[in-house]
Amino acid sequence: MKPRVTIEYCPKCGWLLRAAWMAQELLTTFVEELHSVELQPSEVGGSYIIHLDGEILMNRKDLGHFPEIKEVKQLLRDRIAPEKSLGHSDRK
Amino acid sequence: MKPRVTIEYCPKCGWLLRAAWMAQELLTTFVEELHSVELQPSEVGGSYIIHLDGEILMNRKDLGHFPEIKEVKQLLRDRIAPEKSLGHSDRK
Repeated sequence: MKPRVTIEYCPKCGWLLRAAWMAQELLTTFVEELHSVELQPSEVGGSYIIHLDGEILMNRKDLGHFPEIKEVKQLLRDRIAPEKSLGHSDRK
Repeated sequence: MKPRVTIEYCPKCGWLLRAAWMAQELLTTFVEELHSVELQPSEVGGSYIIHLDGEILMNRKDLGHFPEIKEVKQLLRDRIAPEKSLGHSDRK
């Protein structure tokens, strides 16, 4: 089974648009590698958490800021496709 | 557990954008009712299938055209929130 990403976002904070944009970024970059990206409204205010197969990959509250898409892609790549180049989103 | 929608789309056909738009429509209308909407690239070319808790709700190949968002909302409402009004998306 290919890995599954879940983006848990706070709907009352208006973060659906950001979550949906990130989902599209990840599904474009990792179209071969991912099973799916799930958008999940959180029951907890202020949540913005990216899960990989049920484990927390990045959490806005721990980071102190929103996860940046470049960092999300790098971290996800390291976990699911370590050989993959991310082009200009890659670290030097 | 709240119901879960999956939109299975053909990535090679370029249908991610449509699927992501529909996910946002459903998550906006059914924010209280749905657990999540999952975007899943299909392994089968030409697929555009909306699943509700693993069952097929609408399938482009059976319909002969893309599911329309108004019909998707009506059908989903009938299944998960029969008392809910959809405002101008409702049938007369």
